[in-house]
Order: sequence, then C-alpha cells, then structure tokens
Amino acid sequence: MFNVPEAHPRYKSLTKREKLVTGLEAGITSRQGLIAHGRGEAFDYLIGERTLNSAKRATEAAAALLLTAKKPVISVNGNVAALVPEKVIELSELLNAPLEVNIFYWTGERVRKIKEHLEQHGAAHVLGDKAEARIPGITHARAKADREGIFSADVVLAPLEDGDRCEALIKMGKKVIAIDLNPVSRTSRHATVSIVDDIERALENLISGIKEMKKSSRKEWLLEKFDNQGNLRAVIQEIVERLKELKEFDTV
Amino acid sequence: MFNVPEAHPRYKSLTKREKLVTGLEAGITSRQGLIAHGRGEAFDYLIGERTLNSAKRATEAAAALLLTAKKPVISVNGNVAALVPEKVIELSELLNAPLEVNIFYWTGERVRKIKEHLEQHGAAHVLGDKAEARIPGITHARAKADREGIFSADVVLAPLEDGDRCEALIKMGKKVIAIDLNPVSRTSRHATVSIVDDIERALENLISGIKEMKKSSRKEWLLEKFDNQGNLRAVIQEIVERLKELKEFDTV
Repeated sequence: MFNVPEAHPRYKSLTKREKLVTGLEAGITSRQGLIAHGRGEAFDYLIGERTLNSAKRATEAAAALLLTAKKPVISVNGNVAALVPEKVIELSELLNAPLEVNIFYWTGERVRKIKEHLEQHGAAHVLGDKAEARIPGITHARAKADREGIFSADVVLAPLEDGDRCEALIKMGKKVIAIDLNPVSRTSRHATVSIVDDIERALENLISGIKEMKKSSRKEWLLEKFDNQGNLRAVIQEIVERLKELKEFDTV
Repeated sequence: MFNVPEAHPRYKSLTKREKLVTGLEAGITSRQGLIAHGRGEAFDYLIGERTLNSAKRATEAAAALLLTAKKPVISVNGNVAALVPEKVIELSELLNAPLEVNIFYWTGERVRKIKEHLEQHGAAHVLGDKAEARIPGITHARAKADREGIFSADVVLAPLEDGDRCEALIKMGKKVIAIDLNPVSRTSRHATVSIVDDIERALENLISGIKEMKKSSRKEWLLEKFDNQGNLRAVIQEIVERLKELKEFDTV
C-alpha cells in the first residue's frame, strides 16, 4: 500500500482510496466498486465530510433496531471488507450477529477471498460461501443468500448496498439499515433506516451508540419517533445550504 | 468488453464504465481514474445527465477560444483516451492541434500505451512520450510536458484535469478550457472556460460548435461577454433546484 503522509490535507480520503486499490490487487474489491466509491466521495464532499445531525439520528435509530432484532445479520461486500474490516467484526461481536459476504459482481473466488480477509482480521463467524438460498425478485448470482444468514434475518445491516437488493430485502419483510452517502439513491429511499454518512464514521458512531444504548429503555421510543423520509429530506437540505455557500465563495 | 444491452435504462452510463474497466485491463486507465469517474457520475446525476444551458454557453466560449488560439493543444489522460478516443482525434484534426498524453499517475509505459491506443484509432500527431519540459510549480513526473506541445501552447483543452496542474498552467499565462462535471472543483474554479458537462456530450457539442463558428465574426464578442464564475454559479443553482425537486419526491 502506498503510504500517504498523515500531514496531507486529504490524508483520510487518500488512505481510503489506497485501501480500495490494495483490495483490488488482492481480489477483494471490484473495479466497479472503485467507481461506486468515487460517487460516494462526491456526496461526502457535498455534505462537508462530516457526520450530519440527521446521520446521528439515523445511527441512533439503527442502534435501537439492531439491539431489538431477533436475528440481525451484517452484510459485507468488497468495499466494506477493504475499508473497515475491524469495524464490522467489532460490531458483529457486540451484537452477536454473523457477517455475511454478499457481493454484487459475484464469483466464488471473490467470496472466498473476502471471507479469508475477514478471518485474518479476527472474524469468527462469516457466512456467504455456501449461500444456497435465493432472494426472490433478483436475477443471477447476486440473489444468493445464506439460509441461516440474510435469508432468515429480521434486520439486515447492509452498508453500501445495491438498490435492487435493498428493495428485494424490504419486500421479504425484513428491516434494512443502509449506510449510503447518496441521500437520493434507491437504497437510501427504500431502506428502513438510512444512514447518510461515510462508512467509517457511521460504523464508529454505530458501535459507540450500541454500547451506550444496550441497557437503555429508550430503544422502542427512538424507533417509533424516527422518520426516515424526513431525515433524508434534512440531508438534502444540508447539501442545498452547502452548495449555496459554495456558490457565493469565489476562490479566483 | 461486457456488452450492455442497448435497452437497459442505464445503457450510456454502464457502457462508459465498461470502457474504463477495459481501459484498466489494457493499461490505459488508472485505478484512481475509476474513482474519479465515480465522482463525475455523482455530479452528472445531480445535473440530470443532460447538457445545461450554462454548459452550452461555456462550450461556445471554448469553441471561440480554440479557433482564435495561435497554438492550441489537446491534453489527453487515461480516462479521456478510454472514453472518447474518436472525439479527441476529430477535434485535433478540425483544429490542426496536436494531442498530448498528459497523465497524473505517470509511467513511461502507460504514456506509450495511451499513445498507441490513440494511433490505433487514427491519430496522426500524438505528443507526450518525449516530454522533456517541466510545468513550473508542480513536483514529480506529473509536471512533464512536451516543449512543442502543452509547454508552449497558448490555449490548452484539458478535459478531466487535476486542480494543481490546471492552476499551474494558468500561472504560466495559458488559457485553459476544462471539462469537469464538478462545478466546485479547483479545476473548474481556476480554468479560463469551464465546461461542466459529461466529456462525451461536451466534445460532441464542441465539435459541432467549432464547425458552425469557423467563419463567424462572433468569436471575439463571445469571448468578451463570457463570465466563467457567473456560469459556474448557474450550474450550482441548477443542482440546488434539482435537489429541491428530489427532496419533495417520495418514491416510497
């Protein structure tokens, strides 16, 4: 991995890119995953590369949903595995929820490599390599799901998920928590709880939120008052405000 | 290359991705180029994947600037070569201006491969593989420029250009035409004329604009009345309007 100097003003952003490029070389990330990451970068820039209040509210609701779930599962794709392996593993242990490798451009080899990558980082329970069940309404290999994992889960945490698959999981009656920087993507629109934030910031907040909330009695109340569509509108409004500022700011 | 069916609603977008992935396999595109393309996709979505009136005005000004230039040069990087080789070649012939391979992640091998790729598509005059001059104010290999090309040009068409290099060319006293989907990028902010549009749409419009304008006496007038900063503000306003529409539109 190319070492980005910590003093570089774009250190965090450049380090993420290097992790994905390394993931591509290791056969974990897909090339289309790099393009998807670029889309996320653009939206992260537009929200100011910080966690918005709306994302904090969504993260609280997500913590409550995961803690009240009967069978939560954490979906992991190539970008998630390359960017935040330690964080999904920590979350998996905290919730006693399995990780399931779930990739859009499916090959058995890539699933195996992602599973091994997670296990090298300490993951004990990784599903997805024997995914014999099918998510209804989706064609081809990307419908694959583990019968003991996503297929029978009641709550799925699906960071960086594809819109089709998010919709199909919702149609199966599951609750889906999305982490997606695009507030107008189909995934964000259809998920039960949409966290519009960078995946690293979102998972850090989710982990600390779950630790704080474990013994709280606020969980049901938080879920009841949470309004996902209203929250997405708040994100869009933040972007609009930021663009208006950028419009008035002449750098030249 | 994976064949995307023409009936697919995202046909154009998916075909571009496939061209870049093929370019990566051929050693023409860089992996960071895929991430940069993703950023462009996000902005293209926000402008509605169409040519804005502000982009039409910028394209007219760009045509006038290229036609009144003494020594115009067209800069070509990996993404440009992979996405629109025919169009930069057509433009080069129309203006009698050389193409110069000019890449951010510089290796001699990649420059040679891009040059060969352009020549296979019919390019007669491609510079960049013997770039012995240096653009002042930029470190490392990405400062390289051909003494008979970009280094001594008065007008540089630099699609998908890096912000540092755009600024450095402006400091050398050159006029720079940028094609960049991000209206708030440093490239867009610093260029003489910033076309905020998809590269394929922009080059098509530029080619037809140049053909129409060749014998026109409006060129100086067009350049005089063109206001790049005002034009960029108009793009941002368009994005703001579109986001407000998206905010009110509940898909679920």
